[in-house]
Amino acid sequence: MTQETPHPLDPATPRELAAAVDLIRKSCSGVDVQFKAAGLKEPSKEALLPFLRAERSSMPYNAPPRLIYVMFLYRHTPRLFDAVVDVTNGKILEVEEQPRGNHAPADRIEMNEVAATCLKSPLVQKELKRLGLDADVVVMDPWIYGRDDDVEDRRLAQVFFYIRNPKKSDDFDSNHYAFPLDFMAVTDMVEMRVEEIGRIPLGATSVTGKDEAPLNVGQPVEAEYAHHLQSQPARTTVKPLQVVQPQGASFTVAGSLVEWEKWRFRVGFNYREGMTIHDVTFDGREVFYRLSMSEMFVPYGDPRNPLHRKAAFDLGDVGAGSTANNLGLGCDCLGLIKYFDGAVIDQHGTVVPKPNAICMHEIDAGIQWKHTNHRTGKASVVRKRQLQLQTIITVANYEYIFYWTFDQAGEVEFETRATGILSTTPIDPRCDEEVPFATRVGDGVLAPYHQHIFCLRIDPCIDGDGNTVEVVDSVPMIADPVLNPYGTGYVTESRKIKTSGSEETDPLKARIFKIINPKKMNRVSKTPVGYKLMPISSQKLLAAPDSWHAKRAEFAHAPLWVTRHRDDELFPAGRYTNQSRGGTGIKSWVDRRDSVENQDLVLWHTYTFTHNPRTEDFPVMPAESVRIALKPINFFEYNPALDVPESTQASNKSVLYQAANGCCRGDSP
Amino acid sequence: MTQETPHPLDPATPRELAAAVDLIRKSCSGVDVQFKAAGLKEPSKEALLPFLRAERSSMPYNAPPRLIYVMFLYRHTPRLFDAVVDVTNGKILEVEEQPRGNHAPADRIEMNEVAATCLKSPLVQKELKRLGLDADVVVMDPWIYGRDDDVEDRRLAQVFFYIRNPKKSDDFDSNHYAFPLDFMAVTDMVEMRVEEIGRIPLGATSVTGKDEAPLNVGQPVEAEYAHHLQSQPARTTVKPLQVVQPQGASFTVAGSLVEWEKWRFRVGFNYREGMTIHDVTFDGREVFYRLSMSEMFVPYGDPRNPLHRKAAFDLGDVGAGSTANNLGLGCDCLGLIKYFDGAVIDQHGTVVPKPNAICMHEIDAGIQWKHTNHRTGKASVVRKRQLQLQTIITVANYEYIFYWTFDQAGEVEFETRATGILSTTPIDPRCDEEVPFATRVGDGVLAPYHQHIFCLRIDPCIDGDGNTVEVVDSVPMIADPVLNPYGTGYVTESRKIKTSGSEETDPLKARIFKIINPKKMNRVSKTPVGYKLMPISSQKLLAAPDSWHAKRAEFAHAPLWVTRHRDDELFPAGRYTNQSRGGTGIKSWVDRRDSVENQDLVLWHTYTFTHNPRTEDFPVMPAESVRIALKPINFFEYNPALDVPESTQASNKSVLYQAANGCCRGDSP
Repeated sequence: MTQETPHPLDPATPRELAAAVDLIRKSCSGVDVQFKAAGLKEPSKEALLPFLRAERSSMPYNAPPRLIYVMFLYRHTPRLFDAVVDVTNGKILEVEEQPRGNHAPADRIEMNEVAATCLKSPLVQKELKRLGLDADVVVMDPWIYGRDDDVEDRRLAQVFFYIRNPKKSDDFDSNHYAFPLDFMAVTDMVEMRVEEIGRIPLGATSVTGKDEAPLNVGQPVEAEYAHHLQSQPARTTVKPLQVVQPQGASFTVAGSLVEWEKWRFRVGFNYREGMTIHDVTFDGREVFYRLSMSEMFVPYGDPRNPLHRKAAFDLGDVGAGSTANNLGLGCDCLGLIKYFDGAVIDQHGTVVPKPNAICMHEIDAGIQWKHTNHRTGKASVVRKRQLQLQTIITVANYEYIFYWTFDQAGEVEFETRATGILSTTPIDPRCDEEVPFATRVGDGVLAPYHQHIFCLRIDPCIDGDGNTVEVVDSVPMIADPVLNPYGTGYVTESRKIKTSGSEETDPLKARIFKIINPKKMNRVSKTPVGYKLMPISSQKLLAAPDSWHAKRAEFAHAPLWVTRHRDDELFPAGRYTNQSRGGTGIKSWVDRRDSVENQDLVLWHTYTFTHNPRTEDFPVMPAESVRIALKPINFFEYNPALDVPESTQASNKSVLYQAANGCCRGDSP
Repeated sequence: MTQETPHPLDPATPRELAAAVDLIRKSCSGVDVQFKAAGLKEPSKEALLPFLRAERSSMPYNAPPRLIYVMFLYRHTPRLFDAVVDVTNGKILEVEEQPRGNHAPADRIEMNEVAATCLKSPLVQKELKRLGLDADVVVMDPWIYGRDDDVEDRRLAQVFFYIRNPKKSDDFDSNHYAFPLDFMAVTDMVEMRVEEIGRIPLGATSVTGKDEAPLNVGQPVEAEYAHHLQSQPARTTVKPLQVVQPQGASFTVAGSLVEWEKWRFRVGFNYREGMTIHDVTFDGREVFYRLSMSEMFVPYGDPRNPLHRKAAFDLGDVGAGSTANNLGLGCDCLGLIKYFDGAVIDQHGTVVPKPNAICMHEIDAGIQWKHTNHRTGKASVVRKRQLQLQTIITVANYEYIFYWTFDQAGEVEFETRATGILSTTPIDPRCDEEVPFATRVGDGVLAPYHQHIFCLRIDPCIDGDGNTVEVVDSVPMIADPVLNPYGTGYVTESRKIKTSGSEETDPLKARIFKIINPKKMNRVSKTPVGYKLMPISSQKLLAAPDSWHAKRAEFAHAPLWVTRHRDDELFPAGRYTNQSRGGTGIKSWVDRRDSVENQDLVLWHTYTFTHNPRTEDFPVMPAESVRIALKPINFFEYNPALDVPESTQASNKSVLYQAANGCCRGDSP
């Protein structure tokens, strides 16, 4: 391959995206095309895996052609198309018009048009007049419409209204979420027309906004998050803390290829999933074929019309790549930083670079292992160096931070953080009633309970092809006068998952999900090699089983799913989630009842933040965090971090806080 | 107070310990005293709290006298005493002889005597002769005896035998756990005499060691953890990573008093609990009176006699303070480090300084909060600076690392890591049978399953006196055509804990335990101020309910307990755990059915590592970790980390990995 030829797993390049857009545009001559998304269509596993294996062994093997998927509408019509373009050979491979029920994700330009449409609408102007407000202080949050019946098929948006801080209304960064208005608008995005106004209830228990007292905009104690707008000065007590690597990084990067401490993998990026991780090996042994955050669902618990529809599939309805932040050196990332860039397109087909969409750096995470031999006093201690990849996405009010972390002990961790701003709704400041589904986070500001339901897709390749998932529980040994005479014994019970389906977590049994390669035995343990998923046990979807939320978010029904691998099954709520009806997600895949024993399988882990807001979460939320671990279990013959060099002051150059007072090592008896 | 007068919460000083020992020794003239433990007897809450409050307000208030508890035996007798010495006034306040069933913890000198006794014993020599081994290659692990019947009241130890690595037998740091022998000895510690030899089974399913094939010592792939003994060289790929604070630390320390980012607390230390945290306030408001790791229980799942008794209360039987490591600058601690020292006594009454028993430093934990206003492109981002206190203890084969972490957002986290070496037992290398209660971790080396059951004691003082614990669940809203017409609503359900008792975790309900001050209302949320415990949902004790393990480890029966505060109730398995019978722990305290509503209450959180060893855990174990969070819930009126200054490159001075390839901020469109 020449330097210019991307690797089959490299994200779509700006040149490739432009070429694909160009071919589509030419094929639609005379039509005003509204582009929705474009990115790399990854090669099939059948084509890619032999290539990757040959590549890792430095053997020749033809790279599959570079394919770009493109999603587009005929503007001002509901006609939606999916296309695949071969940019290596400059031809469109397929174009498929979608059934009318499939709705494209939102895009920023379109949402801005929706907002402008609202402001011009007489229906909205009437509401503003009722409230005595000028249009130029209004800020809108256009939302995905969701679904609440079986018939609606217009392409709609729902728009929530706020005003800028009355005290700081000339600053466009004032926090409008502290000043919610009591109405919303439903807008047709094909016709670009406000269809309907909804009034938002102002009382704690009122179920409609009709005949309510007039809106009283409250005066939150601290409405602003932007530092220049806060009423308090920033604290001055935090002294700088810097991470220095005087000899450079321990990793090497070549294009999308990363090598670090026996790990080798590729970093991918696309509009929908954002950061993806591919072809992960440790010390030359295959571990994972592909790792990705595959979907998110954020349903709100405020049952009141018109708030009951508030629910978004943040990946399928918007996209983690298209909302990825440009990560700032020394701001979002501390230390010696490698950035990876991405690229997406906007609705005009223009390539939008996503610089610094992913950052990568090393961190020190405390102690990796230690033992002191009390007989000799000799301590052996090794610090826990990790390699962390970070991406941050902004989906309207919320920020999500995703970290993939690789460890010297062969462990991989996926951390999810949620921060940003609560999506708020008004409440009459004079009302003192308890609100069972929301928290007052500011004077006149109600933050409804909601869930963030994530689904992590794990496509394993544990020591090669043909894996099996085992459900392993720790259980008491049966009482037995010979085998367990004192009732102290306990054992593990394993059950192989033979056909595709879902499983429950069970922390009371210390349940793990072990992915083994039944053909590869560990000669020390005399058991098959494996990796274990240490799942998060969390709440499922709280919406009723017959609700539209439940029908649409199939992956939210169980914390763990195992499917037989198919190339086109990446998105567990279906490819088209916007205004979806369900039925195209993971449930139908497991219902095939495929054999998943000693097969090419995919493990999906659903986990949830049930987020019942606190006052502390406003006006901006301290990050909440959960971590999922994937750890070797009898994969290696011994601790793979054993050869990490001893932690020494010579290399770590730490400093005593107060030499006069402290007792430094060596001084003590 | 003068400089020399310790604060009432300062750990016992060497001078105070020596004074207390001296007084006890004088009072026992003619008796050979075997000291067991000594340390600060903290003042009663009744005496201390007014002092602390006055101190915080700079008001005068008399400090209570300094009391030292002392535990001692009459050597070579079973007679055990508990004493309290007033070292301020130089007098013994009380001495109480313990009933014969109360056994003192082990001490290192005594355990070394036990080992020496074993080597001299003809019973042991006979076993060594059977195995053809010289005594000088033998290494012993003397263990707490535990209990397996109702009658045994001799003070006993059980001793497990190993040899040094036959290939490196001249090195006293060679890892004997890779070479377990097939017998153990029960030793009387009063008589210092081996009483009995037990043979350890060598087969996977054999239940006794009798009539077994002769021991074949295996050849583990990698037996050694000490770097100079490993067969492989240390890797050379890890480049230095340093944490630099050019302007110094953000914290200040005066004696045991720490102030950092609105937090203020004192650091305590004693032989049993090790690190303790006291009088915690945030921005002048009381949060916690006392925080401590209160007990640990480590029962093994190998049911075979004589291994069925393997189970230790690592705090009550040994002590987290007496086993605390001397933490090395740049080894155990990275960055700008403040050390706290402790002091304990040995069995001769000699003061043993514990220098650097606790280290404290700041860490950067990624993003604290962020929001990007997509309308203006303006991002506000704040990094998550934390203050971390670390202590590491070595309990024979295992290391435990405890971290208390304070956060700018008013959050407190307690992290537990387990590392060190597995306690092993032999298995015939030729045997291929499955072992349901253990893992082969080396040739001839079996690592039995076991649990580490911890109990964190939380003595809250949420915004002052009189707290209540609420159990809060997130539950679906009842279907209702008016109130929940689309089935999307959900609410929280709260239940106050009115009387002392235990509770279950329930992650499927996103259950939290909220400690509120019912008298203090948050004017924003219009609810009482509180802190929430975000518990770890983990496995309970796996041993049978009628087992001695279950009787003795009362706290292991439930993940959460609430008791009414009593000064002398610090240890949930009882003050004397060694060879205990149970009945003196938390169960009897909750059985009082005290009112705990709007009271001085204590919350206890039990959590477990069910540790089924992996080959990766040998010859030394990569640290396993769990974290418990205590977070404000409507305690503050808004995000307490709001005023943390913006994260900037000017202060963080990060570096691009590869300027030629990367795209730095500002360059991008």
